Amino acid sequence: MVSRSARTTGVRTLMIVASLAPFAGLAQVSGPLTIKEQGSFFVGGEHRTISAPATGVIPAQSGEITVNQMYVQYQIPLKGTRHVPIVFVHGCCLSSKTWETTPDGRMGWSEYFVRKDRSVYLADQVSRARSGFDPTTFNAVHTGKLASAQMPGILDATHQFAWTVFRFGPKFGEGFKDEQFPIEAVEELYKQMIPDLNSTLSQNPNPTLTQMAALAVKLHGVILVGHSESGFFPEQAALLDPTGVKGLVTIEVQCDTHLTAAQLAALAKIPTLIMFGDHLADVKAPFSWTDALTSCNTFVDQLKTAGGDATMMYLPAMGIKGNSHMLMQDKNSNQLADLVIGWIDKHVESRGRNRK
Amino acid sequence: MVSRSARTTGVRTLMIVASLAPFAGLAQVSGPLTIKEQGSFFVGGEHRTISAPATGVIPAQSGEITVNQMYVQYQIPLKGTRHVPIVFVHGCCLSSKTWETTPDGRMGWSEYFVRKDRSVYLADQVSRARSGFDPTTFNAVHTGKLASAQMPGILDATHQFAWTVFRFGPKFGEGFKDEQFPIEAVEELYKQMIPDLNSTLSQNPNPTLTQMAALAVKLHGVILVGHSESGFFPEQAALLDPTGVKGLVTIEVQCDTHLTAAQLAALAKIPTLIMFGDHLADVKAPFSWTDALTSCNTFVDQLKTAGGDATMMYLPAMGIKGNSHMLMQDKNSNQLADLVIGWIDKHVESRGRNRK
Repeated sequence: MVSRSARTTGVRTLMIVASLAPFAGLAQVSGPLTIKEQGSFFVGGEHRTISAPATGVIPAQSGEITVNQMYVQYQIPLKGTRHVPIVFVHGCCLSSKTWETTPDGRMGWSEYFVRKDRSVYLADQVSRARSGFDPTTFNAVHTGKLASAQMPGILDATHQFAWTVFRFGPKFGEGFKDEQFPIEAVEELYKQMIPDLNSTLSQNPNPTLTQMAALAVKLHGVILVGHSESGFFPEQAALLDPTGVKGLVTIEVQCDTHLTAAQLAALAKIPTLIMFGDHLADVKAPFSWTDALTSCNTFVDQLKTAGGDATMMYLPAMGIKGNSHMLMQDKNSNQLADLVIGWIDKHVESRGRNRK
Repeated sequence: MVSRSARTTGVRTLMIVASLAPFAGLAQVSGPLTIKEQGSFFVGGEHRTISAPATGVIPAQSGEITVNQMYVQYQIPLKGTRHVPIVFVHGCCLSSKTWETTPDGRMGWSEYFVRKDRSVYLADQVSRARSGFDPTTFNAVHTGKLASAQMPGILDATHQFAWTVFRFGPKFGEGFKDEQFPIEAVEELYKQMIPDLNSTLSQNPNPTLTQMAALAVKLHGVILVGHSESGFFPEQAALLDPTGVKGLVTIEVQCDTHLTAAQLAALAKIPTLIMFGDHLADVKAPFSWTDALTSCNTFVDQLKTAGGDATMMYLPAMGIKGNSHMLMQDKNSNQLADLVIGWIDKHVESRGRNRK
């Protein structure tokens, strides 16, 4: 299974290392982990009536399917009730795998936060991974009921795109000298990159935002964490319903600097952390990472003007160099997790909103 | 989020119960669980070259994507190394959610087996859930490069189909009097039902089979468990490469009774368990569950004739009544898990193949 990748990309050494990576983690965990409770469930979901879906073992049928549900997997550590739970939402073309075992087999943020006594909820975005998606339009095109132009495109990212946009190096296959992403295991990241069907969703609002806000209410207060495509989802979910949102963590996204005064006033009531990695100006992405940082600096200023508690962690400015866009998978991922946890302790839980 | 379902199906009481179900589990765990190690990784995966995929934030591009990888999530309990690990593979239109928290909020087989000191590996089938799928053909139709007829249909199952084929009752919305499936929480099962893209895969062989066999080798011996669509996958994977396959568990599927003598001789070396629930003749499915049972009885006889150790657990014949097709989610799911574990202890681990 290694050889084809190796032949294709011409980086045989990298591929062989990557093939071992999933099991390298076996020796790297830091002792047994005791869980108070774990499991999975869905938030939301609506009925949709369909007729004559695709064939297969299932004959043509009419009836209902469920769409727009959001799958959530969770672990509550023994001391979890002492802290505000954390909801992680992944970015474009990825799933909750983002937060699990890193490409090079180290512990991901999901387990690391649990080991730091935080209850962790991993949400697969609506229309992605275990949340499923609505196939109705595709099947209508398949059966000739709809023209192919009416079918949404499926967003997919190539290895080449990821290497550049995730800022692994100046050109494909070449890493930055101080690169923190474990590029020797990049093939394992490529396996995490899956089709993004958000184009099939209503954007008014995207149901993921609705379910994030509902999850926050059901859990009686959470910190919402978004990354990249979902980087501003925490803020958008809080604008739909701030009731359960006790903290906002936004990682590497273009911030919306055109919110109304009323929206900014609402968000200013919630502590907000924004984090950006390194090499923003060192890649030729189809958009500007530097502009994204600028937009988020502006957003932080807007929140502060509105009386909010907003923090920008631009890592290079803090002396932390070489971080990629996938900073939760970078070699210093635990260090960055500690920064987030420290911020939570100081800015969210010190406000007396913790669940002791 | 409840009201729409309730209006649509006219079973308001059921829906209200279902909406609480994900949190009912909070009080039902049987004490803290200590994990030696947990995480996730992929098995397999190949590069595929694409050009000009769907638009969105990502511009038209050429390059490579990774396809046919299989996502696996695992937990190893403290005493896990004393037993042969278990790999669970879900059925049609479902994901590994099948094995997790049940629709009515009880512990699923995945955690139950871990609590019984078994290492558990949950695999999302290739082209499903966190394994992703190959969107190339869909995007080629979207952009007009391919005719819509060349696009595969996406397999989807309605609530009505599931109620009948999963044998919840004689007609939609009505349960069998002794029904073991928690039909008061059926809405939570419907949320697990997601599009099945196996039609996009090579069937020669289905890459899931290849990855299952490879996973068995990498883990130095496993028991493969399949259900429904994947019910015969354990046998098929073992026929590709029996090296790592120490036991086969097949739950509710049409068995292949046309294997060659050589194939039967190969499978006869591996202990095999087949399990069927109740009410096989009591629903009007598009295929016959009774025929499926008959085929598997024949298969068991064929294995025995070839010198194999094959066991049929037809639950009603054992005095266990009312089980549905989703028997791992039925109210007596722990009892059924104990049957599987007892069989493993007696038929697999007593052979000296355990990992003590």
